[in-house]
Amino acid sequence: MAREWIPLDAEVLSSASVVGKKERDGPFGDLFDLCDPDGRFGADTWESAESEMQRMAFQTALAKGGVRDADLGALFAGDLLNQCVGSAYGLLDFDVPYFGLYGACSTCAESLLLASCMVTHGVFSLCGAVTSSHFCSAERQYRTPLEYGSQRAPTAQWTVTGAGAFLVGKRQKRTKNDGRGAFVRITGGLPGRVIEKGVSDVGNMGAAMAPAAADTLVRFFQATGRSPEGYDLIVTGDLGFEGGTLLCDLMRAQGYSLAERYADCGRMIYHRRAQDVHGGGSGCGCSAVLLSAHLLPSLQRGELSRILFLATGAMMSPDSIKQGGDIPAVAHLLELQGPNAGETLEEKGEAAHE
Amino acid sequence: MAREWIPLDAEVLSSASVVGKKERDGPFGDLFDLCDPDGRFGADTWESAESEMQRMAFQTALAKGGVRDADLGALFAGDLLNQCVGSAYGLLDFDVPYFGLYGACSTCAESLLLASCMVTHGVFSLCGAVTSSHFCSAERQYRTPLEYGSQRAPTAQWTVTGAGAFLVGKRQKRTKNDGRGAFVRITGGLPGRVIEKGVSDVGNMGAAMAPAAADTLVRFFQATGRSPEGYDLIVTGDLGFEGGTLLCDLMRAQGYSLAERYADCGRMIYHRRAQDVHGGGSGCGCSAVLLSAHLLPSLQRGELSRILFLATGAMMSPDSIKQGGDIPAVAHLLELQGPNAGETLEEKGEAAHE
Repeated sequence: MAREWIPLDAEVLSSASVVGKKERDGPFGDLFDLCDPDGRFGADTWESAESEMQRMAFQTALAKGGVRDADLGALFAGDLLNQCVGSAYGLLDFDVPYFGLYGACSTCAESLLLASCMVTHGVFSLCGAVTSSHFCSAERQYRTPLEYGSQRAPTAQWTVTGAGAFLVGKRQKRTKNDGRGAFVRITGGLPGRVIEKGVSDVGNMGAAMAPAAADTLVRFFQATGRSPEGYDLIVTGDLGFEGGTLLCDLMRAQGYSLAERYADCGRMIYHRRAQDVHGGGSGCGCSAVLLSAHLLPSLQRGELSRILFLATGAMMSPDSIKQGGDIPAVAHLLELQGPNAGETLEEKGEAAHE
Repeated sequence: MAREWIPLDAEVLSSASVVGKKERDGPFGDLFDLCDPDGRFGADTWESAESEMQRMAFQTALAKGGVRDADLGALFAGDLLNQCVGSAYGLLDFDVPYFGLYGACSTCAESLLLASCMVTHGVFSLCGAVTSSHFCSAERQYRTPLEYGSQRAPTAQWTVTGAGAFLVGKRQKRTKNDGRGAFVRITGGLPGRVIEKGVSDVGNMGAAMAPAAADTLVRFFQATGRSPEGYDLIVTGDLGFEGGTLLCDLMRAQGYSLAERYADCGRMIYHRRAQDVHGGGSGCGCSAVLLSAHLLPSLQRGELSRILFLATGAMMSPDSIKQGGDIPAVAHLLELQGPNAGETLEEKGEAAHE
């Protein structure tokens, strides 16, 4: 059996979030760095608007981190658009080697996991991780153009208009007075397997993704010998109201109780009833902007000490569904720890059973 | 300035290639592992046929390597289809953590570069890298369905129906009699930047990709202090006849002469006139199947000693072109060395200038 759990020694040097109006109007609206209320970001098309969001998010993360693009060894980026053009065009201005990813809505965790592997082992000293989604480009591509005004199923999720960018470096041992503060650590990760359990309803992607999230979480607890109780929060990307409940059920059936410490970015990002979002938020941007604007700052301030962050992706295409395929899904996991949390679980000797 | 050149210490344990009839009829036709003359691979749709090619290629690479899927730490895979469904569905049967990539036709080198980083640094002991393209699914998605019988420009390239799979592990020091033979080494890599020089003609993607290949090659020679003369072959993925000539011109303008040792998989895979392929072959599968069936065996037998392999990708989508975008491109580079080539250039002290 190959090793599953990957110990990492990375830290998030800076991050940025860019959103649209609906996200600005949600419970975390005040926390995002940038917002364009009309969602166009000065562009002529929704696809170009999404690219522009990525450019703005990455530029803001660079500025916050006080580094230039040429200081980065590599960018890991992806989005939901055909041929990932949100990233390819959005990051064109930057002078950084580029690894394009496609993990659907798991891209935030996939990019951070690969970037963290690289900096942990000194392949690069600094990497960027960028992802995005846009409600209008996603509706046009996956469902119907906005002008059609199509109805939504009760379990359907609302694609978040948002881009998140992160700069990741190897953890530096710092003295308290070195003026740089302390950063959130990425202490480990576990990549997901592609799981498909016969769900073909694109109006209920949470149900398709919940088994992938359960598979990754169970493998994580088995590989490390840890339990949900070791974490302040276990937060998924965009399972939403339906999928999140399914995940808790699936985990309970395997003997793990998540309930009191479980959260989902798709459940958090909007006011469910007031904003009429049905099954919750979704899209690559959903977990990315909440990680940047809410979860990382909460860890930084010590309100959270140690969390598991799982971004979940549904990997079908509109064509694969029309051709009768079910929805394959994947969930990548990261363990994050605040700067004041002390030793990692790894260092405490709660070592992985490999 | 961030480090560019990545020293690697990986080896290719096994590989496999699966192709269609036109590739079987080309100059290297006898060398491919599997071929389905009607290109359907038992599937109902071209997209499912492409997935089935990936499944067959990966299964064959596992069998040749004498390992099970569960022995692998991770799979790095991608293709040209919307949402990379060729890979997501094709590799669903396998019990391996999955990193989805989108690098267009650069995916073969992108996946091998990431897999090699992981095994070099012990993140995983064994990784898979899989990619594919299919003429019929690519025509339908990027251009027109086959039934339309549309005309092709003289510079247009023919998408290869093919899938390549590779198993990559950390290099093992072997005695001559350990019965496992010796493997081709991946001794280093350099990831590409996204480059866009104003070419918007999807009937001439070689021209769009040539500047990306030149950017990567020049950065490689500058970072390492090496020169084209150090290599038996410098082989690009699918620049074709037009793009390959442009690359040689671009390199000459920068003071590097590639001509006598330059080759391109898109130029090699078909009989240009007899098979009526205009600008040559293209697609993720083009460089992947020739690397597996021809380049790696030539290195293994000592006919080639040391080569540079650059897979090139054009990262536009049909929509981005319709919306007036130009074609962004990327080229990732690998340095490969045969088992009898002795010390690497790195070990010989021709160290990188960082």
